[in-house]
Amino acid sequence: MTHKRDKRLLAVDGGGTKTLLWVGDGEGRILAKIQGESTNLKSRPWSDVAGELARLVLEGLESSGSTAEQVDAAVLGLAGSDRLEDKSRVVAHMSSMLPESVISVHNDAITALAAGTFGEQGMVLISGTGSICCGFDPAAGTYVRAGGWGYVFGDEGSGFALGAAALRAVVRAFDGRAAGTSLTDKVLAKLELSKPEQLVTAIYEAPYMRAKVASLAPAVFEAAREGDGQGRAIVKEAVRELAELVAAAYARFSPERRRMPLVLSGGVFSDALFLKEFSNRSDIQSLPLDIRVLNVPPVTGSYYMAVRQAGLRLTSDMIRRIQLQCKTEGECNHDTFS
Amino acid sequence: MTHKRDKRLLAVDGGGTKTLLWVGDGEGRILAKIQGESTNLKSRPWSDVAGELARLVLEGLESSGSTAEQVDAAVLGLAGSDRLEDKSRVVAHMSSMLPESVISVHNDAITALAAGTFGEQGMVLISGTGSICCGFDPAAGTYVRAGGWGYVFGDEGSGFALGAAALRAVVRAFDGRAAGTSLTDKVLAKLELSKPEQLVTAIYEAPYMRAKVASLAPAVFEAAREGDGQGRAIVKEAVRELAELVAAAYARFSPERRRMPLVLSGGVFSDALFLKEFSNRSDIQSLPLDIRVLNVPPVTGSYYMAVRQAGLRLTSDMIRRIQLQCKTEGECNHDTFS
Repeated sequence: MTHKRDKRLLAVDGGGTKTLLWVGDGEGRILAKIQGESTNLKSRPWSDVAGELARLVLEGLESSGSTAEQVDAAVLGLAGSDRLEDKSRVVAHMSSMLPESVISVHNDAITALAAGTFGEQGMVLISGTGSICCGFDPAAGTYVRAGGWGYVFGDEGSGFALGAAALRAVVRAFDGRAAGTSLTDKVLAKLELSKPEQLVTAIYEAPYMRAKVASLAPAVFEAAREGDGQGRAIVKEAVRELAELVAAAYARFSPERRRMPLVLSGGVFSDALFLKEFSNRSDIQSLPLDIRVLNVPPVTGSYYMAVRQAGLRLTSDMIRRIQLQCKTEGECNHDTFS
Repeated sequence: MTHKRDKRLLAVDGGGTKTLLWVGDGEGRILAKIQGESTNLKSRPWSDVAGELARLVLEGLESSGSTAEQVDAAVLGLAGSDRLEDKSRVVAHMSSMLPESVISVHNDAITALAAGTFGEQGMVLISGTGSICCGFDPAAGTYVRAGGWGYVFGDEGSGFALGAAALRAVVRAFDGRAAGTSLTDKVLAKLELSKPEQLVTAIYEAPYMRAKVASLAPAVFEAAREGDGQGRAIVKEAVRELAELVAAAYARFSPERRRMPLVLSGGVFSDALFLKEFSNRSDIQSLPLDIRVLNVPPVTGSYYMAVRQAGLRLTSDMIRRIQLQCKTEGECNHDTFS
């Protein structure tokens, strides 16, 4: 039997703007951390995603001094990977590179959940460019979720939602449909524009439109902090929407649910005022949840799942070791919209 | 001097899904009607738009038995043509094909306005896939507008807005965030899906996402007619937003404004209930506006403008002749979202 030190685990967190791949051993030592481009299956052609994954795997193996045959388990959390056929395609591709490995693919919310709850009962609320609330219910052995429907008919309370609301406030004031707001100057400054008419080209022709819109979230936080009425209303509405996602996901747990963690992840919660407004809501406080902000990158969850998938036990020592490695390398902070 | 019958006028209405080109004479006889693909400058590469325009012009000249030199004036109403540099590019391209012609390019809302008001004082409210309210103020010699900011931070009360609200209602009910609604069955049936989970792929991977979302507007109308609470709320909100656009544009006219027409255009107004709810609103009724539904295709407005641009007088005879030609050919109906 191979020693745990010689086992290799592969963890991937693939989002809409970047992808992280970790290669570690069976004792929780991270041997290589590689960063690549987006592997979102819904926003890039499969050939691009497949090429990027292959590059990351080869680089990760080389950088960690590992062979493909050493890899016992690989867990990928990928944005836009909800369909079975998408997952199968990724598994087949990865299997061709890692012949000895058990491979699994999850929506990136599932792996982010594992990063904060280690596979125990609990929930994660993600508000980054998009938003989703996701929970694991061990009693039923199932995942529950609310939200995560994308920017056209979902992503409530996300960076995108905050940014789009800011843009609406600006153009409504410009048209004379609403009162003036300090968001106008803040949004134009952020986008380096001189007048609202330029917003159409700046937003719709941006190569990453959703990220561009989400980058306006800090302007909303700033306006709200300074007392701007519309900025405050936008924050309040986003907080309300996120609380609604949590309540809906919580209601889906089986009746024997106990007190559980609610892990907050994503750039929106890096704003202290927003975090406070959310945590202080009475409908959030009335639920038996221990709120905590995720202090490791979401790829950690893929790693935890890979440990279990390799038939190893996820020990508290291992968790502490991984958390420490993140802390040392300054990876504990949220992504920000800058 | 050339006889009016030998003069040629060229009119274009270029939208997000299709483009119409008319070639007519100086007395209002339409000699050729050619249909092509989208010439929206914001959603297609310039080389495609330029190629499509060239094809339409050549085909229109050939089909009407005209020479390029006969064309005295060409007016193009193009979606996404607000920037001066975009307009200049189109004018230069058209000039290379029509050396003797005066050429002008406008946002397609301006030409739709002319279709209903013939260049007199008045307003047009367009609610198709997108929405905008646009007016011409002869006292100031200027155009006024409200809305038209696109689907991310504008297009209130449009087919897209109605469809997106329907999708939100469906997924909120699915998540347990809102009450059930008959929109669920109607939306799934329209998209030929069996469950809400399939919506993400069906919408975000659609080649024309905005048109796909707008195609759900009739489902909202149907639900509202049948008394569905959420369907009714969505209609009510859309009507309120459109009324707000009208009020904002109206307020921008110079103080000496008189009673004027408000022309309604676009597929959303093809729903009788929606049209009635809009027309009956007290804030709409309190304005000195004569509401009428546009009964000619918007390309007619480009034609009217071309007549004037050629130095001819737009007579009521000419208007009647053009309207009659539309009626005969069944073009008086709105586009619908089918």
